[in-house]
Amino acid sequence: MQYHVDGQLVPRSEATVSVEDRGFRYGDGAFETLRAYGGDVFRWPSHVRRLRRTCETLGMPAAVPDDLAVRVADTLEANGLRDGYVRVSISRGVMPGKLTPTTDVDPTVVVYVRELPRGGTAGESVWDGPAVVQSVTTRRIPDPALPADAKTHNYLNGILARLELRRARNDDYQPDEALMRGVDGNVAEGATSNLFFVDDGVLKTPAAGSLLPGITRETVLELADEEGFPIETGRYSLEDVRGADEAFLTNTTWEVRPIEAVDGIGVGGGPMTDLLARLYDERVEARCY
Amino acid sequence: MQYHVDGQLVPRSEATVSVEDRGFRYGDGAFETLRAYGGDVFRWPSHVRRLRRTCETLGMPAAVPDDLAVRVADTLEANGLRDGYVRVSISRGVMPGKLTPTTDVDPTVVVYVRELPRGGTAGESVWDGPAVVQSVTTRRIPDPALPADAKTHNYLNGILARLELRRARNDDYQPDEALMRGVDGNVAEGATSNLFFVDDGVLKTPAAGSLLPGITRETVLELADEEGFPIETGRYSLEDVRGADEAFLTNTTWEVRPIEAVDGIGVGGGPMTDLLARLYDERVEARCY
Repeated sequence: MQYHVDGQLVPRSEATVSVEDRGFRYGDGAFETLRAYGGDVFRWPSHVRRLRRTCETLGMPAAVPDDLAVRVADTLEANGLRDGYVRVSISRGVMPGKLTPTTDVDPTVVVYVRELPRGGTAGESVWDGPAVVQSVTTRRIPDPALPADAKTHNYLNGILARLELRRARNDDYQPDEALMRGVDGNVAEGATSNLFFVDDGVLKTPAAGSLLPGITRETVLELADEEGFPIETGRYSLEDVRGADEAFLTNTTWEVRPIEAVDGIGVGGGPMTDLLARLYDERVEARCY
Repeated sequence: MQYHVDGQLVPRSEATVSVEDRGFRYGDGAFETLRAYGGDVFRWPSHVRRLRRTCETLGMPAAVPDDLAVRVADTLEANGLRDGYVRVSISRGVMPGKLTPTTDVDPTVVVYVRELPRGGTAGESVWDGPAVVQSVTTRRIPDPALPADAKTHNYLNGILARLELRRARNDDYQPDEALMRGVDGNVAEGATSNLFFVDDGVLKTPAAGSLLPGITRETVLELADEEGFPIETGRYSLEDVRGADEAFLTNTTWEVRPIEAVDGIGVGGGPMTDLLARLYDERVEARCY
């Protein structure tokens, strides 16, 4: 396997960054998780737009290299991958000892890839089964502390949420996604996913502002809108989700993934979840990126 | 210069970590900033205790190596340093692709050093002048989102605060520390320092719970207590600080550093600040660690 580090393809075992890289010292970087289907990255423009926005938030507006798409394509090709997981990381690189960043940035740009097969609309999902969701006490970092729409290397908030799940696991109970609430107690998002649920035929999802609005979330909202489904974004309690008719999670890797249960209470997918999953698959197949 | 990486001294230019290290990918690590005076690390036991606590919070209780003190001493010696800045970083290392960490941890342990001279009680401070402090809109991450007493590689909160300062700077105004408030609006701490102020002879500092209680803060509270100074910890507004008789910042590198002004309003040090700074110096000189 080869990764792309700072403009060069290198064997994975030699893909390193300096211990002085601010990505390592402070998690001072932006990233995107992407999926390539048949050699093309799904919704590339949306991902690059968000990556640029994150870099702007971090005060390094010019950090995204102009040839990023080429770097990603080269990395996929070097590894003989047409279907794959791709991660792009852009850190602020090495700077003198101070915490305050200088304006002169020499970013560290890393492209990671991994095989992630896909068989079209009839293909297998990457998840083994529906999500088993557990709510956690770790609260989602509020927007005034870290802008919610920035996707950064500061990911301990989600890791602490997942650690609560690790502690809750036993032979009979295997939750695999943590549902985080905001400091206001309302449901926000999963550690690596956005949440949707269906209530009396209305598709509902927590409003942007206190969560990272994913590209898959955006796609699903588009699809639902095109189908004429009633959509509501708002603030919801855990009880709203537990009592929903259907519920599912979205992210780039999982796409649309039904929720089996929340805190042990069965919810499950259903007709709207299934239809949105199928429409999503069709969009991928049709190369409507 | 040589650093200590994963059990070995290596030239700084070769001190690297894998791009897959969770320290780089997620800021998934703990750190401490230390100072060596005359070959010994000041308040080593307190720093190690906090490092262990941070690692416990991160679900890797055994990550601090037993021989950490030896690694630090070896690194100082290899660089011919008796007085120096030391940083110890412990990341969760490389793990399979999932966000949820496995319990089996092979941590990445890095010791960084840098020359930082000190001339005893008559010596020069590392800071060029008193701090010029500016309050910022970035709010300190609340404890329920990321435990406030954990010192982690997720440092974007402080970096965003410092970026506000960078934008505020001009030829006539050069703030160098950002004063952060909590989501409740009360004053919490600086981006890399704790805050103290003096009001009618009472030494005041924001209460732990919404800030990282520094080892220097702890030392200053001990010194003030030994001197019989009245001490109060509580919740304070920006106005309380701006209207104080004296104010100063503390951290391992700065020790006790007077505040010249807050948001352009002159505050300054004073007799209590000076005395605490002198007592701190004496404790360092007396090797009362």
